[in-house]
Amino acid sequence: MSSDSPRSIKAAIGLDFGTESVRALVVDLNGNELGEASDSFAHGQIIESLPGTGERLPPDFALQHPADWIDSAVAAVQGAIAAAGIGGDQIVGVGVDFTSCTMLPALADGTPLCQDERFAGEKYAWPKLWKHHGAKEQTDRINEVARERDEPFMARYGGVIGLEWFFPKVLETLEQAEAVYDATDVWLEAGDWFVWQLVGGDASELPRSTCQAGYKGMWSANDGYPSSEYLAAVNPKLANVVSEKMPGRLCPPGSCVGGLVPTLADRMGLAAGTPVSAAIIDAHAGVPGVGAAEAGVLVMVMGTSSCHMLNASEEKEVPGVAGIVKDGILPGFYGYETGQAAVGDAFDWVRRLTGQDDFDALTEAAALLPPGSEGVACIDWFNGCRTPLMDGRLSGQFTGLTMNHRAGHLYRAALEASAYGFRWIVDLLREQGVPVTRFVASGGLPHHNPLLVQIYADVIGETIEVHPSKQGPALGAAILGALAAGEDAGFHSVEEAVRCMTAASGETLRVEPKVQAVKRYASLYEQYRQEADRLSAGEN
Amino acid sequence: MSSDSPRSIKAAIGLDFGTESVRALVVDLNGNELGEASDSFAHGQIIESLPGTGERLPPDFALQHPADWIDSAVAAVQGAIAAAGIGGDQIVGVGVDFTSCTMLPALADGTPLCQDERFAGEKYAWPKLWKHHGAKEQTDRINEVARERDEPFMARYGGVIGLEWFFPKVLETLEQAEAVYDATDVWLEAGDWFVWQLVGGDASELPRSTCQAGYKGMWSANDGYPSSEYLAAVNPKLANVVSEKMPGRLCPPGSCVGGLVPTLADRMGLAAGTPVSAAIIDAHAGVPGVGAAEAGVLVMVMGTSSCHMLNASEEKEVPGVAGIVKDGILPGFYGYETGQAAVGDAFDWVRRLTGQDDFDALTEAAALLPPGSEGVACIDWFNGCRTPLMDGRLSGQFTGLTMNHRAGHLYRAALEASAYGFRWIVDLLREQGVPVTRFVASGGLPHHNPLLVQIYADVIGETIEVHPSKQGPALGAAILGALAAGEDAGFHSVEEAVRCMTAASGETLRVEPKVQAVKRYASLYEQYRQEADRLSAGEN
Repeated sequence: MSSDSPRSIKAAIGLDFGTESVRALVVDLNGNELGEASDSFAHGQIIESLPGTGERLPPDFALQHPADWIDSAVAAVQGAIAAAGIGGDQIVGVGVDFTSCTMLPALADGTPLCQDERFAGEKYAWPKLWKHHGAKEQTDRINEVARERDEPFMARYGGVIGLEWFFPKVLETLEQAEAVYDATDVWLEAGDWFVWQLVGGDASELPRSTCQAGYKGMWSANDGYPSSEYLAAVNPKLANVVSEKMPGRLCPPGSCVGGLVPTLADRMGLAAGTPVSAAIIDAHAGVPGVGAAEAGVLVMVMGTSSCHMLNASEEKEVPGVAGIVKDGILPGFYGYETGQAAVGDAFDWVRRLTGQDDFDALTEAAALLPPGSEGVACIDWFNGCRTPLMDGRLSGQFTGLTMNHRAGHLYRAALEASAYGFRWIVDLLREQGVPVTRFVASGGLPHHNPLLVQIYADVIGETIEVHPSKQGPALGAAILGALAAGEDAGFHSVEEAVRCMTAASGETLRVEPKVQAVKRYASLYEQYRQEADRLSAGEN
Repeated sequence: MSSDSPRSIKAAIGLDFGTESVRALVVDLNGNELGEASDSFAHGQIIESLPGTGERLPPDFALQHPADWIDSAVAAVQGAIAAAGIGGDQIVGVGVDFTSCTMLPALADGTPLCQDERFAGEKYAWPKLWKHHGAKEQTDRINEVARERDEPFMARYGGVIGLEWFFPKVLETLEQAEAVYDATDVWLEAGDWFVWQLVGGDASELPRSTCQAGYKGMWSANDGYPSSEYLAAVNPKLANVVSEKMPGRLCPPGSCVGGLVPTLADRMGLAAGTPVSAAIIDAHAGVPGVGAAEAGVLVMVMGTSSCHMLNASEEKEVPGVAGIVKDGILPGFYGYETGQAAVGDAFDWVRRLTGQDDFDALTEAAALLPPGSEGVACIDWFNGCRTPLMDGRLSGQFTGLTMNHRAGHLYRAALEASAYGFRWIVDLLREQGVPVTRFVASGGLPHHNPLLVQIYADVIGETIEVHPSKQGPALGAAILGALAAGEDAGFHSVEEAVRCMTAASGETLRVEPKVQAVKRYASLYEQYRQEADRLSAGEN
């Protein structure tokens, strides 16, 4: 606990944007969590019909409403400040993490195209949520052309550009709704758009995060974005998208990109001019958030989907890894990003599919079943497969079904499939010479779902540490906010900030593997791998 | 309608034993349905725990309680007579159809072993329901030894003895609970046991149905049961099971096996001495029940499972056909039996799996989906595959799943899988030179589930006639009861009885295939066949 008197406490605020809501966390510079609040987006995920027109959306669509980001952030910040019981002027910095690649087309003044009355009724003018899967054909072409041209950026992404990334989503709009593309002045990540709204300024100076650009925008510090020649080969009209429609400056997370504009400062109850950090991807914020500042710690940020982040001292080519970005997570390391496309989201889908109001009955039934779910096997590609296959078109399955099986069998099989998918990622990293020495689970899911963590531990046969903070990414964002505050916070290095601000996070729960289950899962995992190989080969 | 005055009406009663209940149907000799009633078995299917002890049953178990058969039959007969408004003495004959192979061990006086206090707590002493799947290992051996010895009976069963048949179930008990086997005086079909209770008499004279024996007991009129040498090779202790533990005489359905004993006649409200027919398998009773007396009519008896019956003028070897028995359905024809192991039962399982109270929402959603269920594919082997693979160990699956799919997708995919399985059977018969010229659907399911019948018609691309009687097998059983009555009913041939007693069944509903759907299903069916081939190859 801080020994300062309340009025002298300095704190940072982290804003953690998820798929359904945003959470705000107020943390003092010793890592004490002073207050938090979250607010659900009024429109949630927009997957069935377009607001306003009611147009039924194609099955691959997943959109969001930009007004929700502002309105919910204002409510969450107000709530967190009130819960903390401090004054808004005691906040020294603001950090923001965001889902990615959630992106949108905007006008030069920052107005989202979907908020321009000319385009409100056009679905391609709306922000595409990370999980939007409309760009299948475009992703194929982006990959094919890159392979034909032997583009050097491919090595950093395991040889595959993902369906959910930035350029596929841009190209989808260009090819499906050219008028929207033509009217767009600025294509940008939603996290960058939000930070731009916080700090204002001209589009030419809008702060783009190196993290988002590096992991989702095929950008690197050495090579920049993909070349005009490559983009023209993909679609001639895309040739100059970077120079003409992607203005801004690239800023590392933790760097100060400006001060809060008075209008939003006023609505949020913060001081105008409060320093704001460049955005970071939500999952990546979890790495500092759980205090991981050394190589070899696999930080599992588990929620709707999962992102498994790892710092390493060397760059290795790992097939199917979602991204390797120098200084992408923490300075001085190569940051590896891997992921699973549907985790909590998949479990919730199974819950709805089986007509359950909550998880209680499913969890109770699943916990009584032995490893292997009495013969029910699942491949959990219900939202495609991220690492290692990077293929959003893959689909999932339940096999081995008989009429003796119940909803609990499907649920346990889905948990087990998730654990097998995780082990596949870990095996792949180690096989390529990337050390993985510890497993730290964070995010909401490990706290809500102890059965899931036990199954993960049993499937990998190693201890999983469940980090006590349910706020991994939000705390990470707050740490970046403190770094943006510079001298006002007084940290001299990223490492010092991480160490100090995670010192009060509390006791870690260690989930140990159970010997019998580990043994049983060894052969079940081999069966999973065979079936996954067969299924992905069939698709290709 | 009959022109006789009520007191002079002569009628027969058919008792139709299903998996969950028994139905009694009173029909006059012109085919007018005078009254019906059904009664659910107090213990239903016993699949979770043993009555009395509460012992949890293994997942493959499915038992029944013999007292339910008597008690529910008494209630159903009383109800049907009352509904008909006639006197019990106007019933000239009783016919019985029963699920098969549902079988049990009994003492020499007919007492089921499970009703002997020494064995009430022993699960292997209980009647095994047709769908009981405990004899996997034993079925393997029965088939292997038959193939090694090139046993001639194999040709009549498509080369495969089924997991659900008589000898596998006997052998399971011998090898799992030898004391039960040793204490058994009589192994017999439940239908035969019930008829024995109706007519009484010594075990050495108990009436066994040639239909059950021919289709489920590897018996034929020419060769009898499998030889002692074969049975000894399967298990030395089984060598003399036929001579020592299978007493009785073999009687064709429609022959009179005795008169009602006074005790049961009294409970049922019928006259003592009323003629009783030998039993028939429930599905097979459906063929006369829908008035099919010529070759080429495929009678689809669709309920919990489906049995598709066909008369043909020639005997052809058809791989995977469940049985070809001369005079097995109607005299003068080769009766072909094929089947699908889980139909209504599978749909009900999907309903429960998806947490639905009834089928309304599932049907509504499924009806709106296009052929192919938006990418969800099903193999419906949730209770194994009967025709053509004859393998109870196979399991089912749902593939192509994404988070956009709902319970209605699973349901439609299950309906479609059922239709593909049906088409596979029809293709196989025709490929082997067995003509199939008309499709007549009967049983409860086609009346309750018009969407299912439409999908069947679309998948086979031909008209399906839905027979108006919901009582196909019960009417068939009543026809056999009238035949057993002999001169008192006055029919001179089976054909005459079938013609007269189905003359009043009413208008047939003709379900026509829809051109667009037929086209779409042609390629979906090919995909199903490929996946079914892959899956069954993987199992073997």
